[in-house]
Amino acid sequence: MPETVTQDLPANPTTAPLPDQSLGRRAAASPWRVSRRSARANPSAIREILKLADQPGMISLAGGLPSPLSFPLDAIRAATARVLAETPHEALQYAPSEGFAPLRGWVAEHLAGHGMDVDPAQVLVTAGSQQGLDLVGKVVLDPGSTVAVETPTYLGALQAFTLADARFAALDGDVDGPSPAALRRLGEAADPARCVYLLPNFQNPSGRCIPAERRAALAAAAREARVPIVEDNPYGELWYDRAPPRPLATHWPAGTVYLGSFSKVLAPGLRLGYLVAPPDLLPKFVQAKQASDLHTPGLNQRIVSAVLQSGMLAEHLPALRARYRTGRDAMDAALHAHLGARSGLGCRWQAPSGGMFFWLELPAHVDAGVLLARAVARGVAFVPGAAFHADGSGARTLRLSFVTVTAAQIDAGVGAIADALRELA
Amino acid sequence: MPETVTQDLPANPTTAPLPDQSLGRRAAASPWRVSRRSARANPSAIREILKLADQPGMISLAGGLPSPLSFPLDAIRAATARVLAETPHEALQYAPSEGFAPLRGWVAEHLAGHGMDVDPAQVLVTAGSQQGLDLVGKVVLDPGSTVAVETPTYLGALQAFTLADARFAALDGDVDGPSPAALRRLGEAADPARCVYLLPNFQNPSGRCIPAERRAALAAAAREARVPIVEDNPYGELWYDRAPPRPLATHWPAGTVYLGSFSKVLAPGLRLGYLVAPPDLLPKFVQAKQASDLHTPGLNQRIVSAVLQSGMLAEHLPALRARYRTGRDAMDAALHAHLGARSGLGCRWQAPSGGMFFWLELPAHVDAGVLLARAVARGVAFVPGAAFHADGSGARTLRLSFVTVTAAQIDAGVGAIADALRELA
Repeated sequence: MPETVTQDLPANPTTAPLPDQSLGRRAAASPWRVSRRSARANPSAIREILKLADQPGMISLAGGLPSPLSFPLDAIRAATARVLAETPHEALQYAPSEGFAPLRGWVAEHLAGHGMDVDPAQVLVTAGSQQGLDLVGKVVLDPGSTVAVETPTYLGALQAFTLADARFAALDGDVDGPSPAALRRLGEAADPARCVYLLPNFQNPSGRCIPAERRAALAAAAREARVPIVEDNPYGELWYDRAPPRPLATHWPAGTVYLGSFSKVLAPGLRLGYLVAPPDLLPKFVQAKQASDLHTPGLNQRIVSAVLQSGMLAEHLPALRARYRTGRDAMDAALHAHLGARSGLGCRWQAPSGGMFFWLELPAHVDAGVLLARAVARGVAFVPGAAFHADGSGARTLRLSFVTVTAAQIDAGVGAIADALRELA
Repeated sequence: MPETVTQDLPANPTTAPLPDQSLGRRAAASPWRVSRRSARANPSAIREILKLADQPGMISLAGGLPSPLSFPLDAIRAATARVLAETPHEALQYAPSEGFAPLRGWVAEHLAGHGMDVDPAQVLVTAGSQQGLDLVGKVVLDPGSTVAVETPTYLGALQAFTLADARFAALDGDVDGPSPAALRRLGEAADPARCVYLLPNFQNPSGRCIPAERRAALAAAAREARVPIVEDNPYGELWYDRAPPRPLATHWPAGTVYLGSFSKVLAPGLRLGYLVAPPDLLPKFVQAKQASDLHTPGLNQRIVSAVLQSGMLAEHLPALRARYRTGRDAMDAALHAHLGARSGLGCRWQAPSGGMFFWLELPAHVDAGVLLARAVARGVAFVPGAAFHADGSGARTLRLSFVTVTAAQIDAGVGAIADALRELA
């Protein structure tokens, strides 16, 4: 996800869409009418507050960016020079919508290492996994279709599915993830959910990793309810204690569309990800991809393919994990020091075993938006959690990132949040 | 547009959408339901024929690719090396959805040279102008909304708007373009068209350039009917006789969304284009862009920005025009030689004054799809015109490209088409 939350959904996107509207009073003479789906995507008050977080000296724990210090620059420079020397015309010409064949092959092989049995022909290269969500909206959702989502869930998925005119069913859950029983009930509805969107590994925003037993139970419930799964996995390689359990897709391959990304393991600015679909469904995704942007840039695909084929991930990933583990540990220490039981501030969290985020639950009387304004005044920013909730809840939650800040900044930032909380006590 | 037409619309996309359908008999057990919009995008019989055109020795006049010999490789290599040396972290990190500021500035300045008064803040960088069409669908069209289109029109626009659940109204016209009276009538409908999609410069597929007077009349009719304009201009710089008249957007800035592309002037594989919207409307496009793929790759934007800032277009464009003019003239000569009045084959065409395509009208008894099968047997491929028509017409039309083939191939290819026609006489 990008550096700031640049828009929010309305508090409850499951209510009826807004009526058609022109662009407001000032532009009453405009000949343009904005679509209902676009009108529902409203700019956010929080975005305005977070703009303040761009000021010099501000400690931003709001980011969703990977650390630029982790980008494998030498490997990318070498791969780029090679591609532009050896296959410049191919890299710069129109290319098949499906993606660059060697890259599709690499993905299939890589996923075999995670227990998935994928033919390269099932792989579609996308402009990051965000585009995978857009394509799911186009291929799987009709206007008014319901998508089941976790509580909380990735904001960018809510945005993408909203532009597909979808509605949301927010699944109840616990510390291990969404409830299989809740998922099973969705299959009993008169108009069952078209799919369930799950982010099993170190979820953005909650950091939660779904344990193996819960994965099996969720896949079984989805299969029983005939609600297919969209499994999003941008963070799976970023584990700091142990590798996550095998993907949901291994439990129900015919019922799972799987999304992957190179943004967190190589570099997000290349905008490269992939979608894996059951063989019968892939042609529909390819058609939707073609209508969306013809294909992912050939230059970018060939650069990443060359970087990957060099085998550099074998060294790069352990280094990346070590870097981020240090940040995770620093934030855990800072939270215990400033917001632990002895602080009396009433916050709850669980240290994530991977990914980029801590998820903080505030005491009952504190609204995270109100706290943000106080925290920004003290020189620290975070992302309030409400925007990650499809059901209008989450006012008392917030997300903290530990990957682009130093241990000292983490300590100072969490300390400032504790001070801001004390003001509101 | 990419090298092959990889899908067609149903013959008449204005009819009711297909009912929900599973993935066919074989996959009756699939838990996936395909959306109505995706079900409407059907694979094409023509695609299967065109696959044969990939065989060695086949002369393809079917292509929509620019000539790879025209790519400014040295400039792109130098710009890429500079970007990865000077601003690698910025180029590889997440970036604003709006696009790279210097590139947005270049676009505004460039358009000033075409008589448009554009603030850089009105410019959104897109993944080619195809993505501009996708974003128009998201922001401007509701399910069931009508888009007015030319007859014929760009196939990729029909595909993009179909995935927005749109319907089409095909505008009548003549050799100068669509009829202003027909456009005016669209404003009188109970549910007026949400926009009119126009490709004024050397249209794909027809090659037609709308004259200045017709542009003024169309803009006036659109304004009167309050049907805003989506103006697509990928080919405007590819003029061989004289520069095209000023854009429609200069006639009605508040009522026009303008799409541009670097695919035809630099290289398509970078997937870089832009959208210019009235100031009040741009934020909606930025939100839709963010939900679609977060942002266009920073590396690609910075490469193109560096190439453009070097001023190389001043030399590159005249060379590009000279190259393509040769192809245009060769095809005009071949058509006169093999299909001219003395051939008695009854074909009609007008030599385009720019772009990449000739548009051929066949005699009344010849279906272009039938002719294609005969032509492929003789070693030459083209694109039948029906897929470019939203109203199910166009069976007797076809598109010929002259930019990736030699003069000798053009002569041999057109000769083979004449022979195939004689077979059908």
